[in-house]
Amino acid sequence: MARTESAFVFDLDGTLVDSVYQHVLAWKDALDREGIDLPVWRIHRKIGMSGGLFTQMLLRETGVPITGDRVERLQQRHAEAYERLAGGGSVKPLRGARELLAWLSDNDIPWAIATSGHKDSTARTLASLGVDPSQTVVVTRDDVRHAKPDPDLFLAAAKRLGVDIRSALVLGDSVWDMLAAQRARALAIGLLSGGYGEDELERAGAYRVFADPADLLLHIDEVSARD
Amino acid sequence: MARTESAFVFDLDGTLVDSVYQHVLAWKDALDREGIDLPVWRIHRKIGMSGGLFTQMLLRETGVPITGDRVERLQQRHAEAYERLAGGGSVKPLRGARELLAWLSDNDIPWAIATSGHKDSTARTLASLGVDPSQTVVVTRDDVRHAKPDPDLFLAAAKRLGVDIRSALVLGDSVWDMLAAQRARALAIGLLSGGYGEDELERAGAYRVFADPADLLLHIDEVSARD
Repeated sequence: MARTESAFVFDLDGTLVDSVYQHVLAWKDALDREGIDLPVWRIHRKIGMSGGLFTQMLLRETGVPITGDRVERLQQRHAEAYERLAGGGSVKPLRGARELLAWLSDNDIPWAIATSGHKDSTARTLASLGVDPSQTVVVTRDDVRHAKPDPDLFLAAAKRLGVDIRSALVLGDSVWDMLAAQRARALAIGLLSGGYGEDELERAGAYRVFADPADLLLHIDEVSARD
Repeated sequence: MARTESAFVFDLDGTLVDSVYQHVLAWKDALDREGIDLPVWRIHRKIGMSGGLFTQMLLRETGVPITGDRVERLQQRHAEAYERLAGGGSVKPLRGARELLAWLSDNDIPWAIATSGHKDSTARTLASLGVDPSQTVVVTRDDVRHAKPDPDLFLAAAKRLGVDIRSALVLGDSVWDMLAAQRARALAIGLLSGGYGEDELERAGAYRVFADPADLLLHIDEVSARD
């Protein structure tokens, strides 16, 4: 039986670019300004889901009344703080990210990016990666009803690539990526480059875990063996 | 046989105060300025050892020539960046930290703080915690020849408390705390509040792992059972 290459669907922050810790402290800053006291490591563990869901969850867990105004203000303040922390070109692609995407393109393996971020805020991140969204399948928060841990982003990416998500690989750094991949029935591969532990990713369903995109590219034959 | 209560020897950053992520991004900033490209998650995984050893290790791993000048400059730049990121009172005690220390004092259980930080830089952190270093055993980098993962800090803390380190509990958030505790033959208790994963702490020798100081205080009978 002929086999086709698996498509690769990538998360963006923490998976292809080194931006997770800046996002974490930007959320910390936004929450502090709103008088919501959360330890930084707990914010880190929530990162990767949609900003709206993230703020709603935090408010619910801390018992602060959830209002549309407050959710919107938190997201606005996060965006401002992230701009301060990540401006000036300090956020860079992770080791091997550009090379991995180039290798996939050179080998005619379809790939896409599916991020919980909004279109506007991901534009600069994509530019740092050398990805032209007009030439690449990029699915953002604005394209789907529900972001991770719902499977919609990955399903939309597979649809636009014209592949079956059940034969695709989902690459992510957070447990929300792994959980959303399971819900989409894709195989999930975890990367440590977002700062989660290996066991956290495995418990959330990672089929394999690599250090970063460079480590994945080095072992690409283990996950994308060719005939 | 009469038993005595175990003494508690605490790490500071990530164990009693919520300062790890600010330290991580401060190191990132210092390394960027020195032209040394390291992903943030790898910096996070090195945090907790002495600043001098940390910079020496990073330089060795990245193949950058190690000079005294460079090590000193990196530490200076880290201190400046940390001041920017953690100034204005944004670094706070972790949930339950003050209450845990008060509980130990109220129950006549000896405790001390042993940190890889220098005396000057820890002064404000101690103040945020309500700890008066003239009334408490506080061992800093300046008091010992080698910081973590060497056991010297914990050994010095036990000596100043007048207890045997082999019957003491060491509380920390990083693998370096767990490793240094093992070398000192103390029992190590890991806290997740520095952002390491549970398995990382257990593999490095943690005998128990709790979420944060509040979680440890809630379960204090499990680790410090009284007659």
